[in-house]
Amino acid sequence: MMALTNGPLTGLRVIEVSAFVAAPLAGMTLAQLGAEVIRIDPIGGNIDIARWPLAPSGDSLYWTSLNKAKKSIALAVDKPEGQAIASKLIAQAGIVLTNLPARGWMAYDTLRQQRQDLIMLRLLGNSDGSGAVDYTVNCAAGFPIATGPDHTPINHVLPAWDVSAGLYLALGLVSAVRARDITGQGQDISLALSDVALATVGNLGYIADVQINGAVRAPMGNDLYGAFGRDFATKDGRRIMLVAISNRQWRAIGKVTGLTAKLEMIGPLMDVDMNTEGGRFTARGAICAVLEPWFAAHTLAEITAKMAGSGVLWGPYQDFGQLVREDPRCSPANPVFAEVQQPGVGTVLAPRVPLTLSGTPARPPAPAPKLGQDAADVLAEILGMPTAEVAALRSNGVLG
Amino acid sequence: MMALTNGPLTGLRVIEVSAFVAAPLAGMTLAQLGAEVIRIDPIGGNIDIARWPLAPSGDSLYWTSLNKAKKSIALAVDKPEGQAIASKLIAQAGIVLTNLPARGWMAYDTLRQQRQDLIMLRLLGNSDGSGAVDYTVNCAAGFPIATGPDHTPINHVLPAWDVSAGLYLALGLVSAVRARDITGQGQDISLALSDVALATVGNLGYIADVQINGAVRAPMGNDLYGAFGRDFATKDGRRIMLVAISNRQWRAIGKVTGLTAKLEMIGPLMDVDMNTEGGRFTARGAICAVLEPWFAAHTLAEITAKMAGSGVLWGPYQDFGQLVREDPRCSPANPVFAEVQQPGVGTVLAPRVPLTLSGTPARPPAPAPKLGQDAADVLAEILGMPTAEVAALRSNGVLG
Repeated sequence: MMALTNGPLTGLRVIEVSAFVAAPLAGMTLAQLGAEVIRIDPIGGNIDIARWPLAPSGDSLYWTSLNKAKKSIALAVDKPEGQAIASKLIAQAGIVLTNLPARGWMAYDTLRQQRQDLIMLRLLGNSDGSGAVDYTVNCAAGFPIATGPDHTPINHVLPAWDVSAGLYLALGLVSAVRARDITGQGQDISLALSDVALATVGNLGYIADVQINGAVRAPMGNDLYGAFGRDFATKDGRRIMLVAISNRQWRAIGKVTGLTAKLEMIGPLMDVDMNTEGGRFTARGAICAVLEPWFAAHTLAEITAKMAGSGVLWGPYQDFGQLVREDPRCSPANPVFAEVQQPGVGTVLAPRVPLTLSGTPARPPAPAPKLGQDAADVLAEILGMPTAEVAALRSNGVLG
Repeated sequence: MMALTNGPLTGLRVIEVSAFVAAPLAGMTLAQLGAEVIRIDPIGGNIDIARWPLAPSGDSLYWTSLNKAKKSIALAVDKPEGQAIASKLIAQAGIVLTNLPARGWMAYDTLRQQRQDLIMLRLLGNSDGSGAVDYTVNCAAGFPIATGPDHTPINHVLPAWDVSAGLYLALGLVSAVRARDITGQGQDISLALSDVALATVGNLGYIADVQINGAVRAPMGNDLYGAFGRDFATKDGRRIMLVAISNRQWRAIGKVTGLTAKLEMIGPLMDVDMNTEGGRFTARGAICAVLEPWFAAHTLAEITAKMAGSGVLWGPYQDFGQLVREDPRCSPANPVFAEVQQPGVGTVLAPRVPLTLSGTPARPPAPAPKLGQDAADVLAEILGMPTAEVAALRSNGVLG
């Protein structure tokens, strides 16, 4: 029996031919769960190799952050010799993951000639093959117009569709491995970034709201929709987010602030049932009017102290600097993180996969490879290639 | 050999005891990939049963959208008899997914006494067990302060951490099934919502940017960071998002707009290399100044016609109404969607899982159950319970 020493996916080998966020995140997540993920890049790197932000060395912090725990080969995939090596690696691994157009040597039917039960995962922009990226999908998906104080569209900064697509790809891959274990058959799996966004719009009820109610969700600043939640300014110029979903969370707010009696007046004042999420949403203006002075009279430190153990659902707004410097959840005190030595960059706090598995723990945080660093090892181990042949490939410009 | 008629996860049975977005989305995704997912709710429904938006019937469009393709049992899980039935179902299924506190009868060690190789997945707020929801995690994760035109925090409307957490849970579950198939061992898997957010902050390079460069990503409206991309107003009062990542995409913009010659003047004007993403990012002000008049002189329809087949990466901003009414990607023309009859709601456009699998196609879009509709069938099939016993449980208030 195989020991799953690197996590539940130990023993799987995945060839990744990718760039940017979604496909690399899929590969990284699989690697973090124990798979051996070998990213193949053109010599000199793919289009994402120099993406900002950069370290002082010129190395991309974007690239190193999205390719942790992988192996790297740089290969002239524009030459037949490079394509032949990549094809052999894919045939041996039996799984390939890409966001590049899967045509020519990379077409599923071509690759399958060398490995009958190949599993291929392909990320597309739109399902018709036309191009799309997170930003051009997001603008059409409805969220930017519903974001912020008015109808001026505001893009999210988080590439949420890329992140979701990466996780769908990883899920599709492991699901296809299960199917292959049962049926012996591989398959071609595609995922369009725009479908990820549109399916999510549907999953969250926005499509039904338009179709059934003729309602188009309007922007409402930092208010929650359908429940009580909003941001409040503190005495020391910070902001916090306050939420109550359950009745217990709602009562906790009254208790901590000492404003229970006033909050109880709001039901009759606004003609709502304050023991429902909808009632509290409807009465949110009055609730905020009552709560604002309390938050404005306390510093963030005072609020933090009072909230501790109270059962109130809240959090401080932090920029990325405050998060990294002040939040213990973003530090080696959190078992999800560890400081790793990232070649070319230095010591950085890096996460593992956020899942905590009692039986087959995920591998600890690991750095990204330097471009091409694993070529000799991978070619020797997987293809049995002698050192001299590796050297010849390098001098012929096939291997970087 | 089992025929995977409902998708790659056919044959898996999952008991879900959940509410809200993340855990229900995980269960729904597994169901859409072929698993039999049975959601157990308290009689009358869990805390999310009446969440807005509502259909005219009072049924929650939120709940029905997040529980598609599942089976439903309503059970008095606050009574020993209800807990005993839930425990037996979990023991038989061998997999349980929850975002409720796993204590008492639902503790892993307790449930495991009835099923040695049980796989349990638990969603937490913070890993220390304290409460957190998408909004209270997001405010701390850095994105709201980096969103929009200035440092005033702007919450995202998409519950991106919930969505990501749901997908991580589904991935963790299928990965644990693979591990169990190999080792024969089950396990307890937990995932903290805040860890999903913080790991993503790290994966996208924001932590490294702070630690290595002392740089805190500042808000920059709808501009992309590190590449060229921004929104433009059209002649007819719409807005579009325009992006160029590759040099080919960049050149396509000049070609479509006829502004190549002017865009070529910007390199020397701004002292940047316009053949790099960083150069175009630095020069974005000048680029936008050149392009704005062109977009302002064309309607959205004219722009759409000119962009077709051009290789330009762009998209229109749409609110949820425009998306549902005007975008063919959000219609039955897209194989990801189909119109389904949702009991209590009516005909709605519903998505399947967005993955397209050639070998083991995912089940087509399916409606959500009515609360408790599958109790008799599930209890008969899984526990072999006679009809009379089901009736007795109903009259005793154990079954809804």
